[in-house]
Amino acid sequence: MSKADIEDLFTHFINPETGESYNLLPFLQSLVVDNNKVTYILESPSNQIKKLAELKPFLDQAIHKITGIESVSGILTHHRLPNQKQANPAKHFIELKTIRKIIAVSSGKGGVGKSTTAINLAVSLQQMGLKIGLLDADIYGPSLPLLIGQNQKPDVDDNKKMLPILWNGIACMSIGFMVPENAAMVWRGPMVQGAIHQMLRDVIWPQLDILIIDMPPGTGDAHLTIAQNIELSGAVIVSTPQDIALLDARRSIEMYKKVDVQILGIIENMRTFVCPECGHESHIFGSGGAEEESKKLHIPFLGHIPLNLDLRVTSDTGKPLTLDQTHPVSHMFEKISANLLTALFH
Amino acid sequence: MSKADIEDLFTHFINPETGESYNLLPFLQSLVVDNNKVTYILESPSNQIKKLAELKPFLDQAIHKITGIESVSGILTHHRLPNQKQANPAKHFIELKTIRKIIAVSSGKGGVGKSTTAINLAVSLQQMGLKIGLLDADIYGPSLPLLIGQNQKPDVDDNKKMLPILWNGIACMSIGFMVPENAAMVWRGPMVQGAIHQMLRDVIWPQLDILIIDMPPGTGDAHLTIAQNIELSGAVIVSTPQDIALLDARRSIEMYKKVDVQILGIIENMRTFVCPECGHESHIFGSGGAEEESKKLHIPFLGHIPLNLDLRVTSDTGKPLTLDQTHPVSHMFEKISANLLTALFH
Repeated sequence: MSKADIEDLFTHFINPETGESYNLLPFLQSLVVDNNKVTYILESPSNQIKKLAELKPFLDQAIHKITGIESVSGILTHHRLPNQKQANPAKHFIELKTIRKIIAVSSGKGGVGKSTTAINLAVSLQQMGLKIGLLDADIYGPSLPLLIGQNQKPDVDDNKKMLPILWNGIACMSIGFMVPENAAMVWRGPMVQGAIHQMLRDVIWPQLDILIIDMPPGTGDAHLTIAQNIELSGAVIVSTPQDIALLDARRSIEMYKKVDVQILGIIENMRTFVCPECGHESHIFGSGGAEEESKKLHIPFLGHIPLNLDLRVTSDTGKPLTLDQTHPVSHMFEKISANLLTALFH
Repeated sequence: MSKADIEDLFTHFINPETGESYNLLPFLQSLVVDNNKVTYILESPSNQIKKLAELKPFLDQAIHKITGIESVSGILTHHRLPNQKQANPAKHFIELKTIRKIIAVSSGKGGVGKSTTAINLAVSLQQMGLKIGLLDADIYGPSLPLLIGQNQKPDVDDNKKMLPILWNGIACMSIGFMVPENAAMVWRGPMVQGAIHQMLRDVIWPQLDILIIDMPPGTGDAHLTIAQNIELSGAVIVSTPQDIALLDARRSIEMYKKVDVQILGIIENMRTFVCPECGHESHIFGSGGAEEESKKLHIPFLGHIPLNLDLRVTSDTGKPLTLDQTHPVSHMFEKISANLLTALFH
């Protein structure tokens, strides 16, 4: 079984009920085959949604029949029409019409690699063909400008709305673009709320499949403001395996439950460190703790990332590691992205 | 030159101007000799403060004359009398009469080992003979209960004031003692302020030489509330050598400048990781970045701590590493404590 076999199936797909033949390849936005697990994204033109939705179960069955395939996650996407109604428009003050899914990346505790994970996930998802935006919601410690090595002021349109910085095809916004690098935002809670409102309301986001929000540490004002004002599709929790980090991760999960936001899964960061000299694996922050936690809490485990020198250096130099698709850690992010899409679209 | 030589000098000290002989050993609260650098603390009875203050310069000179001694930091302490006036009482709402010095341990960024540093500093300073208290001011992510392996509710006296948990001789207080371990404090700014006010005002602290406040990450409500409501003697900044952590450390320093609090120094955490298999040193988070930063900013550099497995494991199991005074990392904390006392009392 190879990727080409599956692409072949998309090219000459036959509806088993009618015998009609279709070429679905032009709609195939992304196809990932990993460990006999297939994840694909099919983007439908608006006028063919119904037909493709009917075909999809047959398509999934057909892929499944290919020898060696263990699981199939197919995602059928289309751009939301501007006048399409929200499920519950009254609940949310801010409607983000151009965005299909919004996910929060949280940790409870700071310093567990949440921002590094968020940017690398963004790159990885974008490489799968999705349109991605990244909002850095950390008002006190914005890190996006450093992570992407860019710090220009965003353009403003005639209505004083801000345009995101387009970096590597990803629409990026951070309070860090608007203030001097070392400035301390000594702001009380209501000012934090105001800043976050502005970043949600006064930014002209392009058409996006997923907006990733890199949340600040804690479970306070910023989190409440975001959970109460926009429709989050779910939250991803990043934790190291260490007890003290897991404790804060649990608090973060508890908070999302309180505000009725689904937890899409847990990512374990800094699981192992491999000595560059002798190859010995050290579990500096423990190992497997976050994975065990996800089982206990019945939350999907999305994958783990090692404590990796390249990952740290590329973060510090504004060139996220996943830009190099050949790096072993990039491959890990690819797996996590596939698992995340499965959790998000099913 | 040995510690005994210096103790000898205290036992038979002669005032060079009058020829009078004194035994100062009973007042010697702590004596640290490290790399030809001497730090001592002399605790004076209230009725002898004046005399000891006169003797101190001669004592420092005499110690300095011992062969090999490079520097002498002598601290003369005495308990503040209850009716002693504050320098500027109007500025501060909350007077903590039983506490001589209050220092904030901050980082800007979370996850740099600030809480681990704070608890180990507390133990180290206490081993030097000082009376230490530790206040965990992280309302969203209290970690003190886990770090000391204790989670009982504090006792309350007849006036509904709380008594700190006495752990290993250190007076400890944390919001974590009062709430279930996994509870998420989903609190808006004003609630955070309220909780911190309560922990400052409604806790009966014993006589303390130093109260260490373990600050939350960020530069927000908790920081402003503390800086504006009590008299901080200064702040200690903990950072890893990594650029992204230094960025937040600079923001934290900037914030303390705004509220007119002195920076006592910078501690570099996670400088090196030594492979337990082959001894190879990896600089996972870089190396020396925080030390260079302290030079640039003309702030004392207090010392560095490695990324050490024992340090992490003991933190997670409620038995801070410095309880074992023979561990090499304990020795590093001792040096940092001595440097901190120099910055604090001079």
